[in-house]
Amino acid sequence: MAEFKDRNVDILLSKYSKKIYAQVKDLPIVDYHCHLSPKEIYEDEPFENIGVMWLAGDHYKWRLMRGAGVDEKYITGDADWWEKFYQFAKVAGTAYGNPIKDWCALELSFFFDINTPLNEATAQDIWNRANKVIASRKLSPKKLIKMANVEYIATTDDPCDDLKYHDLLAKDSKLKVKIVPSFRVDNIVLARAKGYDEYIARLGEASGVNICDLTTLKEAILKRMDYFVERGCKFSDVGVEGFPKRVAEESEAYRTFKKLIAGLQVDDFEFDGFWGYMYLFLAKAYKERDMVQQWHLAVTRNSNTLMFNKLGRDMGFDCVGDAFDVKYVKNIIDMANNDDALPKTIIYTLNPTMYYPLITMCGAFRDVVIGISWWFCDHKRGMYETLRTLTELGHITSLVGMLTDSRSFLSYTRHDYYRQIVCDFLGSLMESEEDIYAIEVAKAICYGNAKKLVEGKNEF
Amino acid sequence: MAEFKDRNVDILLSKYSKKIYAQVKDLPIVDYHCHLSPKEIYEDEPFENIGVMWLAGDHYKWRLMRGAGVDEKYITGDADWWEKFYQFAKVAGTAYGNPIKDWCALELSFFFDINTPLNEATAQDIWNRANKVIASRKLSPKKLIKMANVEYIATTDDPCDDLKYHDLLAKDSKLKVKIVPSFRVDNIVLARAKGYDEYIARLGEASGVNICDLTTLKEAILKRMDYFVERGCKFSDVGVEGFPKRVAEESEAYRTFKKLIAGLQVDDFEFDGFWGYMYLFLAKAYKERDMVQQWHLAVTRNSNTLMFNKLGRDMGFDCVGDAFDVKYVKNIIDMANNDDALPKTIIYTLNPTMYYPLITMCGAFRDVVIGISWWFCDHKRGMYETLRTLTELGHITSLVGMLTDSRSFLSYTRHDYYRQIVCDFLGSLMESEEDIYAIEVAKAICYGNAKKLVEGKNEF
Amino acid sequence: MAEFKDRNVDILLSKYSKKIYAQVKDLPIVDYHCHLSPKEIYEDEPFENIGVMWLAGDHYKWRLMRGAGVDEKYITGDADWWEKFYQFAKVAGTAYGNPIKDWCALELSFFFDINTPLNEATAQDIWNRANKVIASRKLSPKKLIKMANVEYIATTDDPCDDLKYHDLLAKDSKLKVKIVPSFRVDNIVLARAKGYDEYIARLGEASGVNICDLTTLKEAILKRMDYFVERGCKFSDVGVEGFPKRVAEESEAYRTFKKLIAGLQVDDFEFDGFWGYMYLFLAKAYKERDMVQQWHLAVTRNSNTLMFNKLGRDMGFDCVGDAFDVKYVKNIIDMANNDDALPKTIIYTLNPTMYYPLITMCGAFRDVVIGISWWFCDHKRGMYETLRTLTELGHITSLVGMLTDSRSFLSYTRHDYYRQIVCDFLGSLMESEEDIYAIEVAKAICYGNAKKLVEGKNEF
Repeated sequence: MAEFKDRNVDILLSKYSKKIYAQVKDLPIVDYHCHLSPKEIYEDEPFENIGVMWLAGDHYKWRLMRGAGVDEKYITGDADWWEKFYQFAKVAGTAYGNPIKDWCALELSFFFDINTPLNEATAQDIWNRANKVIASRKLSPKKLIKMANVEYIATTDDPCDDLKYHDLLAKDSKLKVKIVPSFRVDNIVLARAKGYDEYIARLGEASGVNICDLTTLKEAILKRMDYFVERGCKFSDVGVEGFPKRVAEESEAYRTFKKLIAGLQVDDFEFDGFWGYMYLFLAKAYKERDMVQQWHLAVTRNSNTLMFNKLGRDMGFDCVGDAFDVKYVKNIIDMANNDDALPKTIIYTLNPTMYYPLITMCGAFRDVVIGISWWFCDHKRGMYETLRTLTELGHITSLVGMLTDSRSFLSYTRHDYYRQIVCDFLGSLMESEEDIYAIEVAKAICYGNAKKLVEGKNEF
Repeated sequence: MAEFKDRNVDILLSKYSKKIYAQVKDLPIVDYHCHLSPKEIYEDEPFENIGVMWLAGDHYKWRLMRGAGVDEKYITGDADWWEKFYQFAKVAGTAYGNPIKDWCALELSFFFDINTPLNEATAQDIWNRANKVIASRKLSPKKLIKMANVEYIATTDDPCDDLKYHDLLAKDSKLKVKIVPSFRVDNIVLARAKGYDEYIARLGEASGVNICDLTTLKEAILKRMDYFVERGCKFSDVGVEGFPKRVAEESEAYRTFKKLIAGLQVDDFEFDGFWGYMYLFLAKAYKERDMVQQWHLAVTRNSNTLMFNKLGRDMGFDCVGDAFDVKYVKNIIDMANNDDALPKTIIYTLNPTMYYPLITMCGAFRDVVIGISWWFCDHKRGMYETLRTLTELGHITSLVGMLTDSRSFLSYTRHDYYRQIVCDFLGSLMESEEDIYAIEVAKAICYGNAKKLVEGKNEF
Repeated sequence: MAEFKDRNVDILLSKYSKKIYAQVKDLPIVDYHCHLSPKEIYEDEPFENIGVMWLAGDHYKWRLMRGAGVDEKYITGDADWWEKFYQFAKVAGTAYGNPIKDWCALELSFFFDINTPLNEATAQDIWNRANKVIASRKLSPKKLIKMANVEYIATTDDPCDDLKYHDLLAKDSKLKVKIVPSFRVDNIVLARAKGYDEYIARLGEASGVNICDLTTLKEAILKRMDYFVERGCKFSDVGVEGFPKRVAEESEAYRTFKKLIAGLQVDDFEFDGFWGYMYLFLAKAYKERDMVQQWHLAVTRNSNTLMFNKLGRDMGFDCVGDAFDVKYVKNIIDMANNDDALPKTIIYTLNPTMYYPLITMCGAFRDVVIGISWWFCDHKRGMYETLRTLTELGHITSLVGMLTDSRSFLSYTRHDYYRQIVCDFLGSLMESEEDIYAIEVAKAICYGNAKKLVEGKNEF
């Protein structure tokens, strides 16, 4: 990422850090978990303006605007893009301490060569200059991916997805980046959600299996998993509320699933058993396919019912979930491990109070590691917290590295943010100028470990 | 607060911070939540000596003395004020890291022009000088309030209170500060506490309503609420142990209250339902009156039974409560929001491990915000923690600002402590000398937001 | 510890800190809790090489190696000591942020005069030099204890232990250090563990009491306790998973113990009652003997079943336990206090999210204090966290001081690590060069308080 400008973020203070940063800043990006749309990449429409780029779908920014008291009209309402951009610029100008302030600066600098601070006074000027750049550089998804030097993208996809756009992208010989699907099983395990029966019907259709019981459910899942793996899928993911407190035996899970698809009432105890059973089943399937399992823990979705009913999901009303006992996570990890069915597993939590039990639990299993700071934790102090806690409790090279988890093509600058923090952290711990190992470690956790992981070589 | 001296607190390091501080240090104080006695203000007795000012009722100081091994004789016992002061001075001299050390320095500097560090060696000299100042300046409640430039005080009052002293204060035309009551409902919701029947009888008497069921209970509460509102009440408050896990329907709440006033056993499930019902009822009533709702969460009262039996409540044996699931708080907020019955709400927690779920939950409702660090959290690092976490997860201007929560008139210096920390925090985040927005933000969260709130203009 | 060299740990920055450190660095060590083997001390075999000294039993180092991907062969396998040392050196060279990196540097410097950073490149040289020092200085347990200026060691012993080696050590007039046993009751309270019947049989044998019911169990325990006290035992300890949620009456505990020794099923509710009863009984017994009670909370043992079945316990698969409600801890403390049966109590927790409720709970009882950072928390930031939180919530002099909790004789350097951190912390809080109280406090919490405690003079 050679084009980055210096910015006023209080990192890279020591000379050691600068020395390390020089070695990692231009490394390619392996984005092993994101929510980019393969359709958007394939269609590659040039962007209209900075307003739509920033504010069309970014619920992080919407939350920030609501927190600053901006009227919903300028958030999800019918104001025009300039009005929305202006309101956002105002909010960004006073958003001290919020990572979005830094991210905007990074994005303006890297993709638009704009190094002016964003605020109410500069909004009009930045709007004009950014839109000029968009037009002159023809900024589009593929253009941004190329500018950011991305070499690998794992999108997040439902098992029912036909992966049409992945297939089309795979045929694009001009595309230098490898784009593969990931197997996201939320809809499979959320078996008491409204519309589960329809989902199972779609899964049956997609897999060509008539799903009438647990046996055929598993058959369908494996067929879809293989379909994904054939298209380069290496990662699975799940990010639902809660975690199963127990694992049912096959016969009990069989009975519970029968009730579920019959639309009968299933209580928490029964549901937990089924859910735990599915996690074990999936773990084994991932392990057999040399896939990586990702768990996103402690999230609460759609907290504001009124706004959910108005706007739907992913509109900025998700929250950090309450911490829960890590012993339940350990339970499933340990059971899988006993059965030689534990795939490489990356665990993310939104609730940092779980770090101590969670990171030490990871340290008790060779194939399990903590993921880098996720979502609400993905800010400067949150990154340091993960780096510090992980290294105090374990070994730094067990960290796989950065991912964007983003819906925006501009978010690739967050890799640079992360890299600066890593270098600052390592630089502060170097014993002398001669400590060459810090550079080795930085390269590993900024690029090498993720690279090895997608190539199936990473041993954690 | 122009009279403040420089002190050895490691804040305001950067030149930016100093520039911001110059703009906020002399702003008036809006103390929207405290435990000052309107009777003491009205009677305005000059203080006897620094010993009685500091040690007659401050259970923060008593705890510190116990932690340093001081005999109870010098804490709540019959030692004279000089002896107690001397023991406290000794303890303060070695209380490294405790905010009381800083607060004492601030109070001595601001109200007494004493800039000598307090410790065993200086105790006698400071005792003499401070007492001389008390006598010569005739330090009294009104005098201290005036010195501190306070323009608004919301005391904390039981719904049964006749607010006699508030009425008397309201007639005092020489008083420049506005002093209003707040509606503290602890005794209403602690329905399984000993003496609840007597409390309900008093509430009935105060409201002129014969409370015989839920309907008349609600009638009585609303009458008292209106009585308070007529006297300028803008804030409600509750600060009891625990939080209701559910909300009963009206009919169930009706039955439970019948049992409660009949002195019958009510189990946790029933009680929770009643309690949740009351919270929803109160929220709606506050909203209708444009009042602000304050919840003080995660406190444990009177942990030491032996000392409680000897000394009673508020003697320094309260503790930080265990964290509990924020989903229960969200439940009631969300239900109120669905019913258009969600007033502006400030939530404080004593347990910082709740910050992540709690602050993000606040971020999902426009009228709900986190309060500034409370009680055990009200120290330098605690303030920074709140500022940092709030700003990492949301927008800084959603912060209402500082309150004292204190029983002591000297505590107004804590506003300066807070302001210095705010300025230090903002200064460290300023991008350049030209970043004028930091001053705007500082003014808002040091004075403007609280001012707007008491004037009913704050949109959070 | 006069022989220490300067090291590259980022502490002691201020001149004030250096001044304080000069006053405490050479104070003797009172190690009031460790896991050293009295047999090893008595036999005093010179060590073979640095590999065996470091890697024969240190599961902290094994975890770190696993976290860095080292094959089990070099950890608990049959590789030779040089190979294991080489693998460890490689891992240590990149273990940025992990305290083991600092501890190794401290140990190499203090005991071996080696100030070269340990890593892959220096492994061979350090191996050679360290082994030369071991041979030339005849490094052995007693030699290391003497070098480290230790004056008191409390080992950790099972109540069934005959304390033979303690008796032998007590007769060694040349030994300047006092070595006493501690009463560790894990095996007594883990009453549903496999082999409990055999344990009770052994306890019966050791005490000469035929244990057939609760009465005889208590008799046996008291006999063993007295046996320990006669040998200088001052400390008790317990460090099991979980904590009792209730306390049974004597009659119920009697019935439950009958079931336990009869091998009958005992459910959680019954077991909790028995367990709580035992804690109260033990507290009273300690109090009567002027013993100190230590509770080690929030640990999870043997998380990896597969590895536990292969290698057994204490192999590096323990974890930080989930936080649990401090109200349960308070319950037993408060009950003991009501009965005048509360001994001096030090509470340690592995889960730092418990600090706020736990430390404030300690502050509500004169005889109860928080212990210094334990195990996974025993790193630089963990120590600062304990110091900061304790001092923000209470008085610094309530801290007893450092202990090693170690199985290794080299770990005494951790006292220096702690002392440097204490001095750095205090130095940063000194108001001026003249602030003499910081030195007084440093001496107390680095040596004086622990010394007073073992002499029965500490009032906390």
